[in-house]
Formats: sequence, C-alpha cells, structure tokens
Amino acid sequence: MQEILDYIKKNEEAYIEELKELLRIPSISTLPENKDDVNRCANLVANKLRNAGMSRVEIFQTEGHPLVYGEWLGAPGKPTVLIYGHYDVQPVDPIELWDNPPFEPVVKDGNIFARGATDDKGQMFMHIKSVEAFFKIDGSLPLNVKFIIEGEEEIGSENLESFINMNTELLKCDAVLISDTALFGPGIPTITYGLRGISYMEVELTGPRRDLHSGTFGGAVGNPINLLADIIAGLHDKNGRITIPHFYDDVLKTTLKEKDNFKRLKFSERRFASEAGVKILQGEKGYSTLERLWTRPTLDCNGIIGGFTSKGAKTVIASKATVKISMRLVPNQDPKKISRLFTKHIKDMAPRSVIVEVRDLHRAYPVLTPLDSPATIAASKAMEEAFGKRIVYVRDGGSVPIVTSFSSKLKVPVVLMGLGLDSENLHSPNEHFSLKHFQLGILSSALFFKKYSK
Amino acid sequence: MQEILDYIKKNEEAYIEELKELLRIPSISTLPENKDDVNRCANLVANKLRNAGMSRVEIFQTEGHPLVYGEWLGAPGKPTVLIYGHYDVQPVDPIELWDNPPFEPVVKDGNIFARGATDDKGQMFMHIKSVEAFFKIDGSLPLNVKFIIEGEEEIGSENLESFINMNTELLKCDAVLISDTALFGPGIPTITYGLRGISYMEVELTGPRRDLHSGTFGGAVGNPINLLADIIAGLHDKNGRITIPHFYDDVLKTTLKEKDNFKRLKFSERRFASEAGVKILQGEKGYSTLERLWTRPTLDCNGIIGGFTSKGAKTVIASKATVKISMRLVPNQDPKKISRLFTKHIKDMAPRSVIVEVRDLHRAYPVLTPLDSPATIAASKAMEEAFGKRIVYVRDGGSVPIVTSFSSKLKVPVVLMGLGLDSENLHSPNEHFSLKHFQLGILSSALFFKKYSK
Repeated sequence: MQEILDYIKKNEEAYIEELKELLRIPSISTLPENKDDVNRCANLVANKLRNAGMSRVEIFQTEGHPLVYGEWLGAPGKPTVLIYGHYDVQPVDPIELWDNPPFEPVVKDGNIFARGATDDKGQMFMHIKSVEAFFKIDGSLPLNVKFIIEGEEEIGSENLESFINMNTELLKCDAVLISDTALFGPGIPTITYGLRGISYMEVELTGPRRDLHSGTFGGAVGNPINLLADIIAGLHDKNGRITIPHFYDDVLKTTLKEKDNFKRLKFSERRFASEAGVKILQGEKGYSTLERLWTRPTLDCNGIIGGFTSKGAKTVIASKATVKISMRLVPNQDPKKISRLFTKHIKDMAPRSVIVEVRDLHRAYPVLTPLDSPATIAASKAMEEAFGKRIVYVRDGGSVPIVTSFSSKLKVPVVLMGLGLDSENLHSPNEHFSLKHFQLGILSSALFFKKYSK
Repeated sequence: MQEILDYIKKNEEAYIEELKELLRIPSISTLPENKDDVNRCANLVANKLRNAGMSRVEIFQTEGHPLVYGEWLGAPGKPTVLIYGHYDVQPVDPIELWDNPPFEPVVKDGNIFARGATDDKGQMFMHIKSVEAFFKIDGSLPLNVKFIIEGEEEIGSENLESFINMNTELLKCDAVLISDTALFGPGIPTITYGLRGISYMEVELTGPRRDLHSGTFGGAVGNPINLLADIIAGLHDKNGRITIPHFYDDVLKTTLKEKDNFKRLKFSERRFASEAGVKILQGEKGYSTLERLWTRPTLDCNGIIGGFTSKGAKTVIASKATVKISMRLVPNQDPKKISRLFTKHIKDMAPRSVIVEVRDLHRAYPVLTPLDSPATIAASKAMEEAFGKRIVYVRDGGSVPIVTSFSSKLKVPVVLMGLGLDSENLHSPNEHFSLKHFQLGILSSALFFKKYSK
C-alpha cells in the first residue's frame, strides 16, 4: 500500500496538469451554446476512465447531456463501490469579477483557480487517479469499482434520476461514494452524514387586472405587493418559527449524542458571520447556529418582484406581485407533503381581494446516512490516515437531490467524502480548489479502497 | 353672449381639426429624443394663443422644456384669470396595445383618440378656443386673461415651480383656472375642490455583502426580503390603518356637510370595482370608498425587487431588497413631516441584522380649495348652464403638485374645472377625450369669463 501512496505523492504535478485539461472545457450544462463543450468533456472523462484501467467504459446518451459509465469488476467476492461525480459546471457570470478567465486554470498560493475546480471536476477526478495508481503498481484493484459521472448535476440531475430507476442492475453495488461536499475546515478530515432537503415554491398574487394609478385607486383596492408582504411576514412567528400548520410534525429531534458532537466541533460563529458578510447572525430562537443550519428547517424568500422597479418614481398599484420561497427540510420531512401544507396555508391566508397562484418549482429529500455502515467506517479511517487527524462528522445545510435516489433505489449506504471548502467560491467568481486537499483526496480514496476491501 | 355660444357650437368641426394638429406632435417630455417635438409643440401653442387674440405671447426657455405665456389685459378694473395647462404628454408604451398610432388622432364613437387627448392638450385647448370666440364676435374679452402652458407637467413641473417663484408679478391674477382633472361622470358638471398630496419613498435593506447560497447559510442569517416583508406588513394594522406614529395627527376631519355631499353623489362601488378590474374593494375600516379615496391618507407599495426574479429556481439569499412606497396625503398633512416620520419609523423597525437606507424620492402637498370664492361660484354656474345640470363638488385621490405653488405663491383661489373622465385612459394606451365634453368645456369656459367678469 505504501508504494501506491508514494506513487500518488510523486505524481502530483502530472495530476494537476491532467486536471487542467478537464477544467479548460467550458462544460456549462445550463447553456445551450455549450452543448458541444459538454459532449467534449464527457468524452475526455471517458478517456480518463479508460486510461485509468477501467475494463468497460460507456457513454450513455440521454434526453439531455450524456452520462459517463465505467467499471472494473475483477475482484469477485469483494465489495463493489459506485463512485458518483459530475463533469458539468455552473455558468460564470458575473465574468468581470474573475481575476483570471474561468476556463484558463491557474495555480496560485496552493490553489487551482477555474470554474469547476472544486465543484466537481477536481473532486471527481481524485477517484480516477487513485484507481489508476492501483493499476500502475498492483495491476488490479482490491475491490470492484463502478463510476457514474453525469453532466446535469447543476441543472437538477433529471436524466440521471430516470437512468437509476431503469438501470438498478447495472449500478448494483454495496456502497455509493461521493466527493461533492465540503470539509469542516482546512485540513480536517470530514464525513458528511446529513443533508437538508428542499421544497422550492413560487407564489403569485393578482389584484387589479392592470396596473392602476395609485392616486385614483389608492386606498380602495387591495395592493398585491402589500398583501404579499403580509403573507410572507405571517410565515414566521416572532421567535423565527415557521407558522405553517403541521410543518414541524415530522422533524426528527437531534439526539444528545449529536448535540455533544456539534459542541465539540469548535464552530466559530464569528468566522461564519464574516464568511457570510453579515454583522450579526439571526435565526430561530433556542438553537445554535450549527443546529439552525443542519437540523432545523428554514423558509427563505429567494426572490421577489412586483410593480415599478426602475430608477425613480411611478405612482402605480401593481396588478401582480411574485415571490420565490424555498424551504430547506430536515429528516424526516417529506418535500411533497411540505409543498402541500405550504400551498394550503398560503391559500388560506390570502385575502379575497386577490387571486393567488402557488407553483411547485422543485424539491429534494433530506438525507441522513448511517454512520455505522462498513463503507462509512472504512472512509472515516481512510481519511484519518491520509490527514493524520481525527475524523469529524458533520451535516450540511445544502441539498444533493441525487443522494436520495441512490439510497432509495439501490438500497445501499451513501458515503459523502467531500474535499471542498465552503469558502472555495463554488457557484461564484474565482472558484478554486486546494491542491493540498486534492492530493489528500486521492490518498483518502486509495486508502478507502484498501480498507473497504477487507 | 348667445352669439358667442352659437359661434362655438358652429365651429366644432374646425376646433377638432385644430386639436388634431396639436395631438400629432409627440411632445413626450420625459424622452430626450423628443426634445425637438416638445419645442415644436410649444411654438404651435404660442401660435394658437396669438391667433386667438392674445396681445402678448412669449416663449420662456427654462433649464428643461419651454413655458408658453400669453396675456390680454385690455379690461382694466375687471378681474384677471390665469389659465394653466400643459402641452407635454406621457410616453406611449406599451405601444402594441394601441388600436391606432398614438400620434395619428382619429375620431371614433364621439371620442378623439390620441396620446394627450384628455391629458391635457384637449382640455387646455378649450380655453384658447373660448377666448378666440370672444374676439371673433365681440372684439374683446370681458376680463383680463393670462395663459401659462408648460411642457414639464408629466415630469414634475420643476422649472414652472421656480418660474412662479421668480415671476409673481407677471403671473399676478385674481384666480387660477385649471382643466386637468375629471368629471364625476359623463355629462355631470363637476368642480374638484380637493387633491391628495404625496410622499414617495424608497427603502433598501442590505443583509449579507453578497448573495449567499441558501443551503449553506439559510436559517442562520437575516434574509433582507423576508425582513423587508416584515417591515411592510407592519406598516398597517388589521383595520388597514397606518401604524407610523403621529401619521394621522394633522389629518383634517371630514365635515358632516361633506359627508352628506358624498352620499348624494350616488357613487357606484360596483362600477368603480369594475373600472379597477378587481372582484372586491378593500380599504381602511370605517370609511366608504369615496372617503377612502378622497379624505384618507394611504400607504401603497409601488414596486418591490430583490434576489432572483427570472424564470425557474435559484437557491440564493439576496444581499439586497428594495421597495418603493408612496403615501397619498390629505389636508392638512405636510409631506415633509410625513417623510421624516416614515424614515424614523422604518429605521426603528429594522432589525440589527440589516443596514437600512431610506430615500425621499418626491413629494406634493394636498390641496383643499375654498368653494365660496367668486371664481369658484362663477365656474360652477358656468358649468351648470353649459351642461344644463346641477354642479357636483368632488375631491380627487390624485395629486397635481403645481396647484399648491399657485395658491401659496400667488395667494389666490385655484379653480379645478376638469372635463376629462377617469375612464379615458390617461397615461395608458388608447387615451381619448369625449368630443361632447370638449365642446361643453369650451362653452363652460366662455360662460365662466362672462360670469366672473361681473
């Protein structure tokens, strides 16, 4: 094993050059004009898998962007791990805020800067390189490996969802390994065992048929913007609790053991506030910041618009006002049920002077993975050995919709071994990935294969 | 006098053709590309005044668009009336909703359709034609007349304001006559004696320094959109009363006589709701719709924006949220004081987790003109005779900022003898003006000159 780890360390420079090839392709999944780039990136990933030693590599076309599949099943009797990742990236705007062109990767102060560096090309590539190291040194892997690398993570993974449903035999495995989350802090080995779900809604109020003169009609007709504000304000009580009836019915209580664990994490509220760019933190009464982020559901407006919004003044009563509202959900809340409760509550609250329309835009289930599965234990030990530090177990406030599909359709544990950092500007200008974590990730991956095979 | 009235009736067709000349000029004051058209329109108005018989006509250049001044002071010992109007018009978008091009006037079903038809070219022109009729028949006017016709009413009358301040001697008169308001209904002679004022504000909340991921940060930071909704919702109580401390301190109580008058007006709530395009009306508890519109102050959001407002879903906590809020004010509220109270209250209400900025965009004083001035009495009798019906006295929910300047600087009563209708689409597509009211307006103007001269 030491020989493999040494080989990985020795090849750091070569790995970075190879990663740059991937990062140079603008595989922005949401933009039609980048469709060829996305295809080109899928082909490059397939080549990387072939060169790494996978015995079967296939590109599956979908209604959207292609899925890249790879497998090596030469270890009968040994467990099979399915590695998931994505090769598509977010758009780059606002482009003027980038210090370097987003698709011309540069290394600076121990980080590689490019769109997709941490989310998720850099992280996905770690596993391809650890597999390759085994083949170079041992000529084989200690267990069976499958890869499924998609090109639609940033646009909802819809085609992967149906692919999983129709290919449970192909994807059959004993555990799923995903590196698309964050370390708790630089150099801290971390397993993420909880993700929040989401229910994303849109509410539109229509009052007058057309915009009205606020002098001629003001005071005598319901104003959709004011009434929408009333509705939004009514969704929280003065303690920051959500007022939708039955909203909290299914929320799993945090165990004392988990609370103890949170306390031991030495979370810095001050650093978090500074990362968020706020003077003071604010949230539901009676909970710490970590509890608010990881164990409590939220309700946030994501966007609002109505009436005259240009510079200056126009004396108008708007015909319509619209708000996007998303609720982050925690185990065991069901996003379908929450969407229903939300819709009913909004309709109950809206006054008769407006027509209310509630639209369900998208949703994801919350996730809580078992910490005692052999795969999770192997991943924890692998990271501890690679980092030389005690593992920490964290949850994440965000959502990874596909995780639920893996665990519910394949009925296996999902291990979230992320090597990113929340501060690495994913989805923002100047995205980057720590090269130290890149190497630690490859080492962790190799150690995981070895430990999990036993 | 009968000869003059007959002359006016006989010349209806010619007057309409002349009005079309004015309506063909796209004198949109807010658009820089129409500056030449605005100048052209000022010149045409000046020519019309000259042809009508004014002995002195002058175009005053301002920092913005020109003012057209005209006078005939050949009746020493008789009262002097100052007629105000404006030759500028609103923009025409959405242009696709017009049935005919906005600057190609057409007559249809007894109305003339064009931008500016009712607001205010058609109404202002009535007085020029009535003056002309006197000169054609009698060779003189029974009193002294001054005209001040501006080109910036639709953009705030700023230069007229300072012109009045600097030219009180030139504009000296016994009464101001304005036709830029509406009849209470078709064929009903109407004097408007009250206007609401306005205080137009903008509130901007800033939370995080940049937009944040709602998964990573949601639940632990103040969300500017949610907090802005809280503030807006808090500005009214459950009875629809405004909660700003001292907001109602200066509100003049409606007299019993006025309330009686309102009842006699036979206001149709159903027709009003249908004009507004709403199913049901809504407003402050304890007041009728007319009272709400004419005698009670309001607080309406005119526009709101924040976060992600395009199609689809983006899981973001916005850095900023902004709302435009205007308050319609009634006598004797002072817009400066109200802006101060509003600003203080918003700052008091905003939580510490956001930075709040309040901007004062513009304001106008409310107006209440005396009903017992000789000019108002003359105007009432003139309209009654022209229409053959009892005059009604109404207020208007809108604001005409310049009215206060006339009454406070020139210290004379202002008579609002409007011939428009609220349903004539001023500021909207398919603006029009009733030709029957156009003729009744010219007759009323002529009768007013005669009656007021006695």
